[in-house]
Amino acid sequence: MSKSRDGNFFEDFRLGQLIEHATPRTVTAGDVALYTALYGSRFAVQSSDAFARAIGYPRSPIDDVLVFHIVFGKTVPDVSLNAVANLGYAECRFLKPVYPGDTLSSTSEVIGLRENSNRQTGVVYVRSTGRNQDGAPVLEYARWVMVKKRDEAAPAPDEHVPQLKKAVDAKALGAALPALDIAGYSNALSGSARRWGDYEVGEKIDHLEGVTIEEAEHQLATRLYQNNSRVHFNQHEQREGRFGRRLIYGGHIISLARALSFNGLENAFHVAGINAGRHVSPAFAGDTVYAWSEVLGKARLDGPDAGAIRVRLVALKDKAAASFALKTGDQYDPAVLLDLDLWVLMPL
Amino acid sequence: MSKSRDGNFFEDFRLGQLIEHATPRTVTAGDVALYTALYGSRFAVQSSDAFARAIGYPRSPIDDVLVFHIVFGKTVPDVSLNAVANLGYAECRFLKPVYPGDTLSSTSEVIGLRENSNRQTGVVYVRSTGRNQDGAPVLEYARWVMVKKRDEAAPAPDEHVPQLKKAVDAKALGAALPALDIAGYSNALSGSARRWGDYEVGEKIDHLEGVTIEEAEHQLATRLYQNNSRVHFNQHEQREGRFGRRLIYGGHIISLARALSFNGLENAFHVAGINAGRHVSPAFAGDTVYAWSEVLGKARLDGPDAGAIRVRLVALKDKAAASFALKTGDQYDPAVLLDLDLWVLMPL
Amino acid sequence: MSKSRDGNFFEDFRLGQLIEHATPRTVTAGDVALYTALYGSRFAVQSSDAFARAIGYPRSPIDDVLVFHIVFGKTVPDVSLNAVANLGYAECRFLKPVYPGDTLSSTSEVIGLRENSNRQTGVVYVRSTGRNQDGAPVLEYARWVMVKKRDEAAPAPDEHVPQLKKAVDAKALGAALPALDIAGYSNALSGSARRWGDYEVGEKIDHLEGVTIEEAEHQLATRLYQNNSRVHFNQHEQREGRFGRRLIYGGHIISLARALSFNGLENAFHVAGINAGRHVSPAFAGDTVYAWSEVLGKARLDGPDAGAIRVRLVALKDKAAASFALKTGDQYDPAVLLDLDLWVLMPL
Repeated sequence: MSKSRDGNFFEDFRLGQLIEHATPRTVTAGDVALYTALYGSRFAVQSSDAFARAIGYPRSPIDDVLVFHIVFGKTVPDVSLNAVANLGYAECRFLKPVYPGDTLSSTSEVIGLRENSNRQTGVVYVRSTGRNQDGAPVLEYARWVMVKKRDEAAPAPDEHVPQLKKAVDAKALGAALPALDIAGYSNALSGSARRWGDYEVGEKIDHLEGVTIEEAEHQLATRLYQNNSRVHFNQHEQREGRFGRRLIYGGHIISLARALSFNGLENAFHVAGINAGRHVSPAFAGDTVYAWSEVLGKARLDGPDAGAIRVRLVALKDKAAASFALKTGDQYDPAVLLDLDLWVLMPL
Repeated sequence: MSKSRDGNFFEDFRLGQLIEHATPRTVTAGDVALYTALYGSRFAVQSSDAFARAIGYPRSPIDDVLVFHIVFGKTVPDVSLNAVANLGYAECRFLKPVYPGDTLSSTSEVIGLRENSNRQTGVVYVRSTGRNQDGAPVLEYARWVMVKKRDEAAPAPDEHVPQLKKAVDAKALGAALPALDIAGYSNALSGSARRWGDYEVGEKIDHLEGVTIEEAEHQLATRLYQNNSRVHFNQHEQREGRFGRRLIYGGHIISLARALSFNGLENAFHVAGINAGRHVSPAFAGDTVYAWSEVLGKARLDGPDAGAIRVRLVALKDKAAASFALKTGDQYDPAVLLDLDLWVLMPL
Repeated sequence: MSKSRDGNFFEDFRLGQLIEHATPRTVTAGDVALYTALYGSRFAVQSSDAFARAIGYPRSPIDDVLVFHIVFGKTVPDVSLNAVANLGYAECRFLKPVYPGDTLSSTSEVIGLRENSNRQTGVVYVRSTGRNQDGAPVLEYARWVMVKKRDEAAPAPDEHVPQLKKAVDAKALGAALPALDIAGYSNALSGSARRWGDYEVGEKIDHLEGVTIEEAEHQLATRLYQNNSRVHFNQHEQREGRFGRRLIYGGHIISLARALSFNGLENAFHVAGINAGRHVSPAFAGDTVYAWSEVLGKARLDGPDAGAIRVRLVALKDKAAASFALKTGDQYDPAVLLDLDLWVLMPL
């Protein structure tokens, strides 16, 4: 019997099960450079040690979304190698800044299970936590995925669907901030004078630019996160599959959209939480990704001189974001790739 | 009204205007590794800390052309987002070595304006300066670009065309050198025994190798420099444009040509200045780039045990450099991508 | 006469000749990040400083195969620029761990020469050594390549074919290990509880996953190693050649196979030696690479709490590894890209 592992199937999960994921990872300036090359992000806090220091960080923190990808990647071999679909995220909070040299590892708890009526698949809910080398949590999120059964005849587990919050409470945000000194924040260097007070609920922003995805790019990205989900890498196998092509890791679209959102959200220097997220349709190499945002809400934070803005960030494929395409009735526009609901922080 | 910015148009510029560009950037060993992966450069000073130390550097400096790209990239959102053409460079000098950990930022001064007779575009001349975290200039260059007008009816500014030098004075070179100890310079490790004295004015060098460009490569490179010029990234938009394809950032060709030039100029360990440069024709993915050089001049430097060689560095596409293709009369050969006039330094 | 060099031809080599190769190279965290992005390797020792420290390393060592590529790359301009074929490797041992910040350089000794009967080519045998900045050997291997003659009429050298061992003696392994503290080795973090004692001679392992190669990826990799062999980069020239396409550096396949082998050999944390290796057929962009392993032998090491496993690692193209395809009689299966015989170490 081969020693290689083909991942867990639906009937392998147990409610309350704790999984310690393999492959701890030291994040370095090398990862930061690659992340810049992959997405071209221009947020000053993550780009410049000098800028970060001027507002109270010891140096530039690792981009929040890169932290997410690395923590997420470790969960794939145990949680989603046999996933049919990545259904959603909720209750995602960034709890501590991560700096080059920190080592990240991940654990997950199974918080829900529900077999589908076709008995071929089931939904697995996990709460995953990323920790640094001291064991301190840096990131926590819930995620649910539809996973194949190995054996249709395997008995269904007791159904348990966890109650997940629609949004992260604004009072819970900001845990990953140092003591901020916003007086040191330069609008010229950040790229915009528009701060928290300048954004209004209901406002929509066309992030203007578009970027075309290449196979080599998403493969480099996904491997950088040590995410080994097969559908992203194996054209020989995918040729015979439903789409005939390699699917792009949904997180690659999140990072592209976040980087595009710089144009209009230049001072949104920190992603503090993700309320909800849905990969509405699959992306493929050759697609050109555009993004737009809508301001859904605003909140002051208690401590630091920063406020939170709740943003819907939408990624479209092959359709300019000036369309602000989203839904017709309940139906998503076919151009929508990603519908993400997140909290970003801005200086007051 | 959307908060995103579509850049400055010709009528937005004023003579004497000072622009502080956004997105300061800490350069790291990660950037160095990516630069090596993108171009395969083999100059020993930039490749080996031990080699650099042996001749007087505290460690390997960042490749000069990488410094140029990072400083340049910051100017794009303000200067050339609406450029029709990047017309030329002049008076470019490297003023201080840059090391991993240094943070670069850029400013530009508008030094010339000239509306074109069609009233649809105008030429903007800027002098851009890159500075490190201490505010010390590390790079200075003049550049002129043809920029669209937003409104044809906008009044033309007073015409002012700056007098730019045809070449950087050799006496002004070498500012970015440490106190050199050329006794520590190993010909075996550098790859050649040919030094400053072995090159003659008029000599041409075929750099022999050719390298084919991929879309993913130039996109990774251009994003690494945080250069957000749209024409490099958006196939969905470019499909409808003049070329039907993504254009490659001209600086990518400069870096490819510089790396190819190692074969024949192994000891040209430092680019000290760029006298003039022209992107003669656009490059696209799939093009194979070759390079050749001609020695245009030589000069001793005052202080260090190094001499300057003025080189014309020509990049060709899909044509071997043994052709030394350049011009027929005033017309450039259609294979010419780049005609660059630069000062490189070599040990005596 | 041009100063550029087109490499050595068969008649340029002399038995006993010592070659000091150019381009010393400081290896950094940037190279590590790129290597992860290129191959997605998940071995915990190389991924996590914390994991490496727990078992006795001062920090994560550089991946052994990356060390091999960097040392190898330096030999290309002198040894194999005019190679027709890379025929084999033997007696490869890793002698000292390499850490970020170390500077590698290479030397080679010509240990054998044999002209082919067609007088157009000959086989050159070299023993190459990689050293760190202190001059300490970190890697040693023998390699033989078939090299073109510049001039068919050049006289043949005295034939000398070196006696190379079929396998590295197990007693010679482990030189690149620190004093190991295997008590600190976590199976949960490494990804498997299967250690040295769990593998049996004759056992075959299907590494399951497949990965499709892109042009940009192998070019980035090969340039990262500063390997300037032309066949990997120049489509304009290769179009006219035997395959009509760019050939992929054989070492790229080794790294892909090693990374795939994680699934089933999770605790094989160190490649200690390469007994033999053959690039059976050329690989091209678009190929999907699979890998399988067979346990050929086992040996206890004297000092550390680790044992050696001798593994045949086979890479296939466009054929799932469940086939365990290798040979029919003496003929390799057409899907076989690589047949590598190596020693890996595992905790007891």
